[in-house]
Amino acid sequence: MRLRKKPGVREAMATYPKLVPLNGEEYKGKWNSFFGNDNPIHVELGTGKGNFITTLAEQNPDINYFGVELYEEVLIRAVKKAEAKELNNLSFLWINIQDIEKYFAPGEVDKFYLNFSDPWPKKRHARRRLTHSEFLTKYKGLLKPEGAIQLKTDNEGLFQFSLNQFAQELFLLKEITFDLHNSEYVEGNVMTEYEAKFVGQGMKIFRCIAAHPAQLAAKVEEQKSRTSV
Amino acid sequence: MRLRKKPGVREAMATYPKLVPLNGEEYKGKWNSFFGNDNPIHVELGTGKGNFITTLAEQNPDINYFGVELYEEVLIRAVKKAEAKELNNLSFLWINIQDIEKYFAPGEVDKFYLNFSDPWPKKRHARRRLTHSEFLTKYKGLLKPEGAIQLKTDNEGLFQFSLNQFAQELFLLKEITFDLHNSEYVEGNVMTEYEAKFVGQGMKIFRCIAAHPAQLAAKVEEQKSRTSV
Repeated sequence: MRLRKKPGVREAMATYPKLVPLNGEEYKGKWNSFFGNDNPIHVELGTGKGNFITTLAEQNPDINYFGVELYEEVLIRAVKKAEAKELNNLSFLWINIQDIEKYFAPGEVDKFYLNFSDPWPKKRHARRRLTHSEFLTKYKGLLKPEGAIQLKTDNEGLFQFSLNQFAQELFLLKEITFDLHNSEYVEGNVMTEYEAKFVGQGMKIFRCIAAHPAQLAAKVEEQKSRTSV
Repeated sequence: MRLRKKPGVREAMATYPKLVPLNGEEYKGKWNSFFGNDNPIHVELGTGKGNFITTLAEQNPDINYFGVELYEEVLIRAVKKAEAKELNNLSFLWINIQDIEKYFAPGEVDKFYLNFSDPWPKKRHARRRLTHSEFLTKYKGLLKPEGAIQLKTDNEGLFQFSLNQFAQELFLLKEITFDLHNSEYVEGNVMTEYEAKFVGQGMKIFRCIAAHPAQLAAKVEEQKSRTSV
């Protein structure tokens, strides 16, 4: 269900047809025609004010980026940021992440980013967490077999939950760090608005890579053939 | 290399032939004859003063326990604790964990416990950490396919390192918690001496289960057959 607090928001969004395609479902499986190239597609799930995704788009012109966001109050700020930078490899999907499969075809996405997602700490809200196995199953279907999810969070509970869910769903876990900004993985790290604030307060950032289960299956096969030789 | 600081320690240990078999290599693959039963074998790697393993042995008479410890100053305290309790399902191996394969045959061990192992925080000492992939390869060889390693530590760096190594070596990670004593997994938890002290100071305890890679391979197979049906 879309929340539309302010009248005229849809009209405002409609003034950016390239940055906020409102007919995204029509491009499912053919985003390459939308962008006019065959570049890889990276999707941030929950873009907020868009600092992360606009910076990445600026730094990597050969990758097409999507910022997925439901809340128009923050989305419009991301859109204006992107417009000011005149980026042509970035778009926003003003949708519920729940519906992500309506917008991308199987294997169409190279990478998902999950940045500082709502931790939904109460147990009865576990299914709303964006790393719940039901979500992971969706992402897995849309990712290329070579693809991966990158997760960053300041929330220990969400990180713990996510590691367990990734492992259970047979993603290949890599580069797990409990303190990104004091780790080797900080090189090239692009900060979100939240992250900059948290790091400024001396808080630790958790991060990991969860590679597509096909990569784990391949490693299992490789191991098997090595042992049987 | 065995450290022998005090003269007569070997002789002292030799006075407990059942509790500290000094000819452990001879029982490799036939510990059932040593214990006179076919009960499962659980091994704590680095037993220290032995509170954990003696308590477990007391609670579970149908499991045979080993405490592995190199340092005789602490080992002798564990031995005396076990002697006082008159346990016949517990023995100690006064050996270097490095040599563990000389004492157990492939598939002879049902469970390994790693409790508050030395974190060896310096990068150049990474290979000494008891969850380094070289150690994991040894444990894997000795574990039954249904077996698992249980890791507890207060050290964030070691926990982070261990999760990465377990994932890389294709163990199936389960029940990861960053705060054991405020988690559902605390039920039935037996504390080590360190743990009691740390918990008393309000410190958090990290814990996870790493099931034998055969269990991960089986899950991958199951997943494959489910998708292809």
